[in-house]
Amino acid sequence: MSEATKHVYFFGANQSEGDGSMKELLGGKGANLADMASIGLPVPPGFTITTEACAKYYELGQKGLHDMIAKEVEAALAKLEKATGKTFGAGENPLLVSVRSGAAVSMPGMMDTVLNLGLNPETVAAMIKRTGNPRFVWDSYRRFMQMFGSVVMGVDHHHFEYELSHLKKEVGVQLDNELTVAHLQLLVERYEHVVKHSTGKKFPVCAMEQLRAGVNAVFGSWNNARAIKYREMYDIRDLLGTAVNVQAMVFGNSGGNSATGVAFTRDPSTGDNRYFYGEYLINAQGEDVVAGIRTPQQITVLGSREWAKSQGFSEATRKAKFPALEESMPKVFKQLDGIRRTLEKHYRDMQDIEFTIEDGKLYMLQTRNGKRTAAAAVRIATDLIKEKLITEKEAVCRVDATTLDQLLLPVFEKAAEAKALRLTVGLPASPGAATGRIVFSAKDAEDKSKNDRVILVRVETSPEDITGMVAAKGILTARGGMTSHAAVVARGMGKCCVSGAGDVQIDYQKKTMTVGKQVLKEGDWISLNGSTGAVYKGEIDTIMPKLTGPFEQIMTLADKYRKLQIRTNADTPRDTTVAVSFGAEGIGLCRTEHMFFDPSRIIAFRRLILVAETVKKLRDEIATAADTEKAKLEQALTQPLAQYNQALKDLLPLQRKDFEGIFKALKGNPCTIRFLDPPLHEFLPGNDNPAAQKDMADALGVDAQAIRQIVGELHEANPMLGHRGCRLGITYPEVTAMQARAVAEAVVKVKGAKAEIMIPLVGSVEELVLQKEIVQKTIAEVEKEKKVRLGIHIGTMIEVPRAAFLADKIAKEADFFSFGTNDLTQMTCGFSRDDAGRFLKDYVAKGIYAYDPFKTIDMDGVGRVMMNAIKLAQTVKPKLKLGICGEHGGDPKSIAFCHKIGLTYVSCSPYRVPIARLAAAQAALKG
Amino acid sequence: MSEATKHVYFFGANQSEGDGSMKELLGGKGANLADMASIGLPVPPGFTITTEACAKYYELGQKGLHDMIAKEVEAALAKLEKATGKTFGAGENPLLVSVRSGAAVSMPGMMDTVLNLGLNPETVAAMIKRTGNPRFVWDSYRRFMQMFGSVVMGVDHHHFEYELSHLKKEVGVQLDNELTVAHLQLLVERYEHVVKHSTGKKFPVCAMEQLRAGVNAVFGSWNNARAIKYREMYDIRDLLGTAVNVQAMVFGNSGGNSATGVAFTRDPSTGDNRYFYGEYLINAQGEDVVAGIRTPQQITVLGSREWAKSQGFSEATRKAKFPALEESMPKVFKQLDGIRRTLEKHYRDMQDIEFTIEDGKLYMLQTRNGKRTAAAAVRIATDLIKEKLITEKEAVCRVDATTLDQLLLPVFEKAAEAKALRLTVGLPASPGAATGRIVFSAKDAEDKSKNDRVILVRVETSPEDITGMVAAKGILTARGGMTSHAAVVARGMGKCCVSGAGDVQIDYQKKTMTVGKQVLKEGDWISLNGSTGAVYKGEIDTIMPKLTGPFEQIMTLADKYRKLQIRTNADTPRDTTVAVSFGAEGIGLCRTEHMFFDPSRIIAFRRLILVAETVKKLRDEIATAADTEKAKLEQALTQPLAQYNQALKDLLPLQRKDFEGIFKALKGNPCTIRFLDPPLHEFLPGNDNPAAQKDMADALGVDAQAIRQIVGELHEANPMLGHRGCRLGITYPEVTAMQARAVAEAVVKVKGAKAEIMIPLVGSVEELVLQKEIVQKTIAEVEKEKKVRLGIHIGTMIEVPRAAFLADKIAKEADFFSFGTNDLTQMTCGFSRDDAGRFLKDYVAKGIYAYDPFKTIDMDGVGRVMMNAIKLAQTVKPKLKLGICGEHGGDPKSIAFCHKIGLTYVSCSPYRVPIARLAAAQAALKG
Repeated sequence: MSEATKHVYFFGANQSEGDGSMKELLGGKGANLADMASIGLPVPPGFTITTEACAKYYELGQKGLHDMIAKEVEAALAKLEKATGKTFGAGENPLLVSVRSGAAVSMPGMMDTVLNLGLNPETVAAMIKRTGNPRFVWDSYRRFMQMFGSVVMGVDHHHFEYELSHLKKEVGVQLDNELTVAHLQLLVERYEHVVKHSTGKKFPVCAMEQLRAGVNAVFGSWNNARAIKYREMYDIRDLLGTAVNVQAMVFGNSGGNSATGVAFTRDPSTGDNRYFYGEYLINAQGEDVVAGIRTPQQITVLGSREWAKSQGFSEATRKAKFPALEESMPKVFKQLDGIRRTLEKHYRDMQDIEFTIEDGKLYMLQTRNGKRTAAAAVRIATDLIKEKLITEKEAVCRVDATTLDQLLLPVFEKAAEAKALRLTVGLPASPGAATGRIVFSAKDAEDKSKNDRVILVRVETSPEDITGMVAAKGILTARGGMTSHAAVVARGMGKCCVSGAGDVQIDYQKKTMTVGKQVLKEGDWISLNGSTGAVYKGEIDTIMPKLTGPFEQIMTLADKYRKLQIRTNADTPRDTTVAVSFGAEGIGLCRTEHMFFDPSRIIAFRRLILVAETVKKLRDEIATAADTEKAKLEQALTQPLAQYNQALKDLLPLQRKDFEGIFKALKGNPCTIRFLDPPLHEFLPGNDNPAAQKDMADALGVDAQAIRQIVGELHEANPMLGHRGCRLGITYPEVTAMQARAVAEAVVKVKGAKAEIMIPLVGSVEELVLQKEIVQKTIAEVEKEKKVRLGIHIGTMIEVPRAAFLADKIAKEADFFSFGTNDLTQMTCGFSRDDAGRFLKDYVAKGIYAYDPFKTIDMDGVGRVMMNAIKLAQTVKPKLKLGICGEHGGDPKSIAFCHKIGLTYVSCSPYRVPIARLAAAQAALKG
Repeated sequence: MSEATKHVYFFGANQSEGDGSMKELLGGKGANLADMASIGLPVPPGFTITTEACAKYYELGQKGLHDMIAKEVEAALAKLEKATGKTFGAGENPLLVSVRSGAAVSMPGMMDTVLNLGLNPETVAAMIKRTGNPRFVWDSYRRFMQMFGSVVMGVDHHHFEYELSHLKKEVGVQLDNELTVAHLQLLVERYEHVVKHSTGKKFPVCAMEQLRAGVNAVFGSWNNARAIKYREMYDIRDLLGTAVNVQAMVFGNSGGNSATGVAFTRDPSTGDNRYFYGEYLINAQGEDVVAGIRTPQQITVLGSREWAKSQGFSEATRKAKFPALEESMPKVFKQLDGIRRTLEKHYRDMQDIEFTIEDGKLYMLQTRNGKRTAAAAVRIATDLIKEKLITEKEAVCRVDATTLDQLLLPVFEKAAEAKALRLTVGLPASPGAATGRIVFSAKDAEDKSKNDRVILVRVETSPEDITGMVAAKGILTARGGMTSHAAVVARGMGKCCVSGAGDVQIDYQKKTMTVGKQVLKEGDWISLNGSTGAVYKGEIDTIMPKLTGPFEQIMTLADKYRKLQIRTNADTPRDTTVAVSFGAEGIGLCRTEHMFFDPSRIIAFRRLILVAETVKKLRDEIATAADTEKAKLEQALTQPLAQYNQALKDLLPLQRKDFEGIFKALKGNPCTIRFLDPPLHEFLPGNDNPAAQKDMADALGVDAQAIRQIVGELHEANPMLGHRGCRLGITYPEVTAMQARAVAEAVVKVKGAKAEIMIPLVGSVEELVLQKEIVQKTIAEVEKEKKVRLGIHIGTMIEVPRAAFLADKIAKEADFFSFGTNDLTQMTCGFSRDDAGRFLKDYVAKGIYAYDPFKTIDMDGVGRVMMNAIKLAQTVKPKLKLGICGEHGGDPKSIAFCHKIGLTYVSCSPYRVPIARLAAAQAALKG
């Protein structure tokens, strides 16, 4: 960045230096303010200090920036003074400004804002003289001191709040706006004292000093903990920093004909376009609405009525106490509604706007693409097609694939919900249903969520509660509207939230919440319906939601444009049915061992393990025994071998039945069946659980000591790299044969069944060959017995790095490859998924890995291994079917990578199938 | 193999169809018999059935071969009858044949042999008539039945032995040769009964039937357990099978003027060329010598005298009872000694020969390159250079590198040996010293060697004892000469062996061995000096041997021809000194953590771990804490951080001192120092050892519960893939800095010290960069403090597959690469070295892996990964220094691979340095 770089961009009617395309440089807010001013919307003028300046600020060690940009700022201020006819920090008509953050990607509430900047004793006096409204001016001054004091000077905000509430008690008033001018003057004095006491410095009176400090504070807030956390959570990266917007103040708190509000051009919760969705507060400044301190009023009459109904207010009460903007300021409403239409046409998307009305005049303070629930995103995207504002392809790319699972989250079972004890109804702030145990702090939510489902109950939430909100299943607040912190954040997370449940009394000390006569303690069960706002006592069963028309439409469009096939990972007919209903085109990973874990089978499987170990040992001895010893050992093998074969015979019909059920549920779609994979000790109760070992021993009619011994023998230092996968099949070929027979016989039984047998953990072509021989021989036997041809394919997982390196040799023997990216990641990166938590987060934070490699494919490393394997395999079989069946199959970024490297399909858990369909389409459209 | 393929090759004076170059096809024995006949040596004629026929035999499922080769065999037999003037299985002058195995690689004693084939009642009668020696003929017949019965017909040989010893008792004689003709006739009858009873079949009288069955039996013995085991042990692979040699019998047992013997053209134990080294038995057949049933006599007078001295016989007794061949048959001796010279010139190597003297006429039955100890191999190779029989390069290739460590094995401390109670002196069958607890069976040797050193004590050994011999530290036999089974096998293994200790009485039942009045029980300590034959009671301390001139000469030649540098893996000054004395050119792997395990340091290191965990947790919390929480947490961190820094400060001088010692021992050679690698829990006593935890807690002045808790927190499901290597350095950068400072300060202190710092377990270039920054910063500090330039290199291990894939990026940041092939193998193949034993042996047996990948680099897989890494790295730094520091650095096959792929050096344990030097030279010469 040279000295000549422009760091300051002016905006205002006909004077905007920037435009909507300059989000990277000016931030979203700055770019859109310039934009709105250019298209003739009423925007108070101001200027934006660029994100590059922010980067420079950090480059210079958070000092010295102002020397560099001083001239530009001074010039912009002069222009601003001219545009407004006011003087900054002095004169008869003082210019006050707001100083707000604004990065290229919206991070609502995460960074700092200072309003009313420029106030000092001199400008206070001048403004009183000019407005004749000393109360407004003094109120603005104390607000400014409070905000500047805490945000810029680092004074704990509790000190200000204490002085405010203490004063109110002292003078015997309840509400802030009951304080008189004299009270406010006294408060300002006390605030000055607080600042001096906390920081050792005087509150600054020089407006330029205020401005410089304010700009620094906003740049500094780019790297505060919650902003970092937010970027981490939403994977916002590669930004230079935040821009700072310095804008002439307009005052929503200048009297009864003033107001401030936030609104969405469509319903951000449902996507509904029936009315103009938003809230406002008379005689207030912006932070009052967001903070949820007063109950905001609705923009439209329609919205107001629906709200009043949900709160149990009569129409008369509503109209008297909470009139809609449409009613209280019909002219302004009409102008605002017009702007709403203008903005949607201009930005071709739902907007989230902020406005202020000063003495009856409307000002636009912000517009941005509105955050929305997944349901709303889907609804809006399809509606915008209908409205011819966007194309099909754009619509497909408009929906964030990762959020789709919100739509598939369970809702309460109707009957169960009807029977439950309803405590109260709050605002339906974020849809979905949640049930869990009550916790009253973010910390408790984090701690207790490790072992249990929890609901975070707060009077209101603040940005510092974010980790607790992440941990909780749902959030309930006693205060705050639909645009309160709790509501906005919860919707962003797709987390169920009921806000503003005013009946709820919360006592943080006693850890209780009281609704009428009901007193609930920490740890008690509670249930929230985020779609209706209902709050219930106790636990309520949940079921699957029905998918709506717009969802189907987006899915259909996704299917139209995607190239990748989408399969699912499913081990039961039930999961299979769910996945097929979500559009899965087959099973990419059917884990046969999950069937053995079923309580009804585990005993049969454990019996097998017990005798299999004896068989193995004898066979090992025979292999190396002297010729003279062999006969004796062969003899000793007879009985265990018979038991072993019997155990397999017992398992065969169970396993066959499993496959039959799955084949039926698949309705002719293919099913990739992975043969036995986990190490055998996973099927046995550990030596730390003697009671379970005793139970097992009793069930099998053996001595508990025998279980203990075999568990000891099967113990491995690194089970991940142990005796598992096809290594088991090599040691116990009869198990492979049994599984092959179960598959083949099930294919015979279910018409149209398409089976693909997948050999796991292959690291050497010989392993595949040996296992294939057994499988093929068994299939041939069944084909002969049943006089059919089964057409079963045999392929392998590529999950051992060695296999990826020998992919050409292995491809010769395989009908398909499926990348087992979980294990491939573990071995390629040398990370144990069970253990890596200890350092992986830090690794991502330090940029050693771009993403958690167990969530998003490590494209640099594992990705290179995969591409190399594909290249090798295609030298042998150019059209080899290639899939992926690790957890990554449901991760959009990984899906985009799979598309790019030319896989045939991805396979993911049933609930992620729609995500995968959409992500695949987006990959195809964007790639 | 077409029908027209030739399966049978005749050999005999002027008639040999094969020659010495045809070992692959005719086996070593067959090729050399043809060869010897061609150069005019007295070889009984015969024919060889090829190894291809053996392969065909197995291909045809062990049946049907004879139909295919019948005509060729008949033709060869006809030729043989003509050459000998005898008739096979009939007539007045019957032709008897031996049927012997003979693969391309010698496998002494592992496969089957049948002598005297062709005997039946008719030929017995004819031979008696012809020879006038019924005793000889009947003795031959009973030998034939015994051999054919057990080898071909599968009768347990104990049955025959029982009948023989029973008869001797019955008729009151001690020795076999005291049996009369009538006794032998009776024995033959009883043998017939044994065969009929055991197999249900009559002993075959048709000579052709005998021959066919004999040939099948020899082919069949290719795959008996001990042959398979032998090939596995000596890594003999890719052979078609064994050939079968059918040769006209000559009879060493036809009277007092007949004999049979085996000899080496030089001393196979020392390589000495002072005399013709060998043994013979008058009136005996070959197996009598090998079986050690009678004490054999020496070939030369010189040898005979030395032997007699060791046995305590007077010269008179020797001459009377054990005369040398030189004395008993001087003419034959002279002829044999001439043949010895001829063979050495012809084969340009020491030969192992078998001969038979029939009625004063000498016949050669076999010659092959003689097996020898490593000392002998070195001595012979250097002598042959002097004798101008071979070149320097050939000499380097003549010594099996893997055997060199035999020469470096400790010998007894002189003083300790002098003081020890000498029980007896046997034959110095295989050099070295061994001390261990007595076991009396191969099985016990295998079992007890797991926890202890054992000495296998047997009356004599047989091929079925091999696994026990492998397991034991040394072998003691009461019977058998220098060419007995025990002696030959032990020498091959480089294992200490004392054979033929006739004073030793062994009772297998009571598990005791008695020497005079001394009775030793199983489990008692015993010591063997394999170089002198001395047997001692008790345990004797050992020391390092001095290396001889020929060894130095071979090493010098190796250094002349090798390209690879040889470094060592050493962590102490002592190991370093040993390695440097063996020719190590530096340290390739100095494991710093081994220093921490030292009892004097472990407490300091444990103190570090305890507080480091607290520091880590607090730092993790601070990283994600809300801004308001941070100050409090920072405050909480103060004290633990101070303790943590103090613990590091305490460790610094200890670690520096370690490095100083090593640098001094290196005398200016470079030292690659790997920074802390193992997971921290390895330094703590486990939760299964509360007593040790209590001790640790007491030593550190903390509560035992604290230890228990931290052990729990540090527990990992797969520690191999856990929080270790540079991951520790990322979490605890101060540890890296401490280690860097210790290295830098030690380099300052030791003149000429060359340090290379190696960052372990790098999987991402960012890890290396982050660690390098710390190291460079620390070095710069030390350089500034001490006003020096240290020239310390910083490189990385390549042991995570991901790193191999990103080798180009990583090479940019690294001064060198060192392949950590242990971990690279674990992760590439997905094998845990601690656990893979459960199936890996089976994997090698089944050919899934060519070799145990932890012993010999898995060239197909891991090797491909390495080559890829090198290729990538060299695109960035064509001259990057490349090393290897896994266990593979001492394995000759792996060293050859390292040479091939262009590594700069290999690093191995000190005792394998000479092996590596030689293997590197052989790789350079053969490559």
